[in-house]
Amino acid sequence: MNKQAVYHAIKSNYSFPISDHELEVRLRVAKGEAQSVELIHSMKYDWTIRRESCAMHKAYSDDLFDYFIVRLRLQDTRFAYIFRIVSEGRSYYFSENGVTEEYDFSLGYFNFFQCPYINPADVHREVSWVREAIVYQIFVERFFVGETGKKKEYVNLRWGDIPNPKSFAGGDLEGIRLKLDYLQDLGVNTLYLTPIFESCSNHKYDIRNYFRVDGMFGGNEAFARLSEEAHARGMRIILDAVFNHCSAQNKIFADVEKKGRKSRYYDWFFIDGDKPDQKAGNYEHFAGCKYMPKLNTNTPAVQDYLISVGKYWVEKYGIDGWRLDVADEVSDVFWRRFRRELKREHPDVLLIAENWHDAYPWLRGDEYDGVMNYSLTKACLDYLVYGVFDAQAMSDRLSHILMRNTDQVNNMMLDLLDSHDTERFLTLAKKSGKDERSLLCALAILFFSPGMPCIYYGTEIGMEGGYDPDCRRTFDWDRQNWNMQIYETVKKLIRLRKDIAGEVTYSAKDGVLLIGREGLLLAVNNGEETRTLNMAGRKYAIDPVGFKIIDIKEGGVL
Amino acid sequence: MNKQAVYHAIKSNYSFPISDHELEVRLRVAKGEAQSVELIHSMKYDWTIRRESCAMHKAYSDDLFDYFIVRLRLQDTRFAYIFRIVSEGRSYYFSENGVTEEYDFSLGYFNFFQCPYINPADVHREVSWVREAIVYQIFVERFFVGETGKKKEYVNLRWGDIPNPKSFAGGDLEGIRLKLDYLQDLGVNTLYLTPIFESCSNHKYDIRNYFRVDGMFGGNEAFARLSEEAHARGMRIILDAVFNHCSAQNKIFADVEKKGRKSRYYDWFFIDGDKPDQKAGNYEHFAGCKYMPKLNTNTPAVQDYLISVGKYWVEKYGIDGWRLDVADEVSDVFWRRFRRELKREHPDVLLIAENWHDAYPWLRGDEYDGVMNYSLTKACLDYLVYGVFDAQAMSDRLSHILMRNTDQVNNMMLDLLDSHDTERFLTLAKKSGKDERSLLCALAILFFSPGMPCIYYGTEIGMEGGYDPDCRRTFDWDRQNWNMQIYETVKKLIRLRKDIAGEVTYSAKDGVLLIGREGLLLAVNNGEETRTLNMAGRKYAIDPVGFKIIDIKEGGVL
Repeated sequence: MNKQAVYHAIKSNYSFPISDHELEVRLRVAKGEAQSVELIHSMKYDWTIRRESCAMHKAYSDDLFDYFIVRLRLQDTRFAYIFRIVSEGRSYYFSENGVTEEYDFSLGYFNFFQCPYINPADVHREVSWVREAIVYQIFVERFFVGETGKKKEYVNLRWGDIPNPKSFAGGDLEGIRLKLDYLQDLGVNTLYLTPIFESCSNHKYDIRNYFRVDGMFGGNEAFARLSEEAHARGMRIILDAVFNHCSAQNKIFADVEKKGRKSRYYDWFFIDGDKPDQKAGNYEHFAGCKYMPKLNTNTPAVQDYLISVGKYWVEKYGIDGWRLDVADEVSDVFWRRFRRELKREHPDVLLIAENWHDAYPWLRGDEYDGVMNYSLTKACLDYLVYGVFDAQAMSDRLSHILMRNTDQVNNMMLDLLDSHDTERFLTLAKKSGKDERSLLCALAILFFSPGMPCIYYGTEIGMEGGYDPDCRRTFDWDRQNWNMQIYETVKKLIRLRKDIAGEVTYSAKDGVLLIGREGLLLAVNNGEETRTLNMAGRKYAIDPVGFKIIDIKEGGVL
Repeated sequence: MNKQAVYHAIKSNYSFPISDHELEVRLRVAKGEAQSVELIHSMKYDWTIRRESCAMHKAYSDDLFDYFIVRLRLQDTRFAYIFRIVSEGRSYYFSENGVTEEYDFSLGYFNFFQCPYINPADVHREVSWVREAIVYQIFVERFFVGETGKKKEYVNLRWGDIPNPKSFAGGDLEGIRLKLDYLQDLGVNTLYLTPIFESCSNHKYDIRNYFRVDGMFGGNEAFARLSEEAHARGMRIILDAVFNHCSAQNKIFADVEKKGRKSRYYDWFFIDGDKPDQKAGNYEHFAGCKYMPKLNTNTPAVQDYLISVGKYWVEKYGIDGWRLDVADEVSDVFWRRFRRELKREHPDVLLIAENWHDAYPWLRGDEYDGVMNYSLTKACLDYLVYGVFDAQAMSDRLSHILMRNTDQVNNMMLDLLDSHDTERFLTLAKKSGKDERSLLCALAILFFSPGMPCIYYGTEIGMEGGYDPDCRRTFDWDRQNWNMQIYETVKKLIRLRKDIAGEVTYSAKDGVLLIGREGLLLAVNNGEETRTLNMAGRKYAIDPVGFKIIDIKEGGVL
């Protein structure tokens, strides 16, 4: 047996409570090596006296590993366990001693694995509404111009023209409000808006005032109207929390520029010297952008301030979640406190972070609920656009991504194909000689994934765009220009979504990627020829670069 | 290459800041498989443009794996990296994509590993005094009777007789104070006292009043005197924080017994029903002990209360650390808050938890500083007493234990051979047909380990004892009965300890276990024959079940 492949860790994505009396345990072994895995367990203090055992089932496999899983209901949550693995007819134990052929249960208390106790306050709770959420991300400046009375001198881009980094097209919150019928007809129920606070840029990731909605977007009143009407329709709103940095024009930074070390805000930033100098850039700032000085979230007063921002928009405007910009560069100490103080009274406020990588360290229940699932984005690109993965490799990768996190976190992921920070999926597909069929397949995968599907505005009509700022084009409201095949597919997937529930399964068969969710099966064919899938005595022809959704019980196609 | 063996995880014991601008990165590969490992890295935002690389060195090996390590000083702490592994002459990359032969640096931002930013508030700081600490654990009831004026009706055990669970021998804090000369002469500088607060038991792990030292021990005044005198001598004191449970005689529990749900303390416990009933035991309690009702540390008022206890003894009596009893059954939410609120003003107060297992999940810098290193205890037993490990296996195990945690945590471990909760090491050795030589070797290993060596009272004179209560015998103050070989060895090891510094190395050669610490080398022979160690042209004869400490530069033996 490949002993080096065997992995388990307590209090992690390999052993975590789902609820106050429910524990999930996972074990990883080299692919194909274990005929069976058993969990030998007991109440911790009974370990040397009596133990029980239960079978674990092979739930997922990636290219290298099989993942065995079991869920247990525990009356007493002081839980000790080790694994028994049968491989090539031989039996092994796996404990803190590693893989051994013998295990001395009389001394086991030194070396068993344990869930010492499930404390209710430590359980990572799934936000109540995530399983029904269909998210729609809007780059506010480019969706629709609603306010007719506002001063429009700042607008310098004709609606429909290609934007540059300094373009202003005039989109605003009233524009979104006026399009709620459209959005609701499409079927989305959760809006994620890029930043709306006072800022001189079109993207507003450089914030001057965290308590004021930008005048270009209609001010606080416009947001109040939008929030009220959206909520009256049963929709939810997620705002963008840009806490890693602010604008160099923010008053707090200006105060430090003026007073230097004497400013009460001096330690709100990371300044090398007595005073910040925007030309020299002698202060930490986001990426290479001197106009975005980094906030020092190690400083308690900064934490206080940003927490007050976080609470203000929840309590005064009823928002339902925060998307946390550049969250991984902000201190853990801050996020823990932010979560704690926000969730104390608002447990159903969702915290989704920007993180392009395996974000497990932040997803242990004490910081974020989920992240923007760029790992899924990349997998879809590697499978459908770049051809790096075949169906089997895609199944492996999706399994791998899933096993990185707990079930709760997987359900709170924001699953996306593209965003204001990437080239649009359709554009990348076309660059690689593919067409909208690749996007349709990707959308189907998105809707069959655990987590919340998120449509970047305009995806549903076939909007295109390269890297920022090109991915931030104005929405084309002329239906004549829409790709109705994409539009109808998105609508259909949204309609079906409520029936796409339960545990996900990934596999590949006859070159077809199969994603199962409780009675429904998505079959994706990324080949250039029709593939025939044989399932339970029936044959299903899957078009080239196409998909079918199969009702397993009925045998029909949806 | 065994791809399944390759492991790395960001923001973990495999990638952690040592200080505000210093990062340690580790990679695990199958033993013997990598000829070289290189870290390819860059400032995160430069990844696609320019990268550097540096060699990692193979620092530790256990039975299955090699661990490669590098420490980097970073000016800009936004750090991206992947690994290049050369195995059997072929080159592999290891990134979030797994082990691959190719890596596309132009798309790397999806798949590199990263340290997104080192926030000073997130760095796990080593407590300033741990490297000089020589700890001595005292079971207070059994060390020495100091107070002559106190009522002694409760004493029911003659000093020197074998205790039972209900025995009271009369030891107290004044007794410890009177023996400070002895302790200082021995060389210890840090006292860890089992609980001293009001309680009707001899062990006092069932606390009635957290703000009062038990009268049997001399009350608060006696502790004030001890603390003052110990600190005047440059010694430190660690007290035992029993926060998982209290005594059923504690007023707060009595209040719930009386008033049931109407008590303000009802949710301070986990009660099944309207009222706790000590006969029925209808409330959660420690292990099987109904007299120890479990405190509900999920309840904020309980947290407030216990934090006030934690601060009181630090602020009013100047204690230097807390040992946290049954810490793994207490909520993470509580420990995070306890740490935060205590360390805010007292960063040098040490938090050492009781945890018998791999405690990594609690040692990420947000809960404890270290734990009682029972894994080391078990390794010493397996090597020196049970004969499970030979020298090589012991080197492997010590390496394995070390690689579970960050360097800071390893330095803050409380290394012990036995305690009030185990049989004494010497007794276990004798039970297995060994003698005090095994203990001497174990002590040498203890003093050469990173972490704080901790001597359980009486070990230095050869005290014996089986499992609780036998391991809690009275200290024998008659020097005639002491094992002077053990005593002199402990003194010598303590004296040498200040020169035992720097990174540890583990290996085995000619059947001899070798532990290196910056210029000094401990050589342990656990065999029944003299073994000859050949080192740098010299020969060292190591006695059967014996050790030598070699000064590598001088070639001499200390």
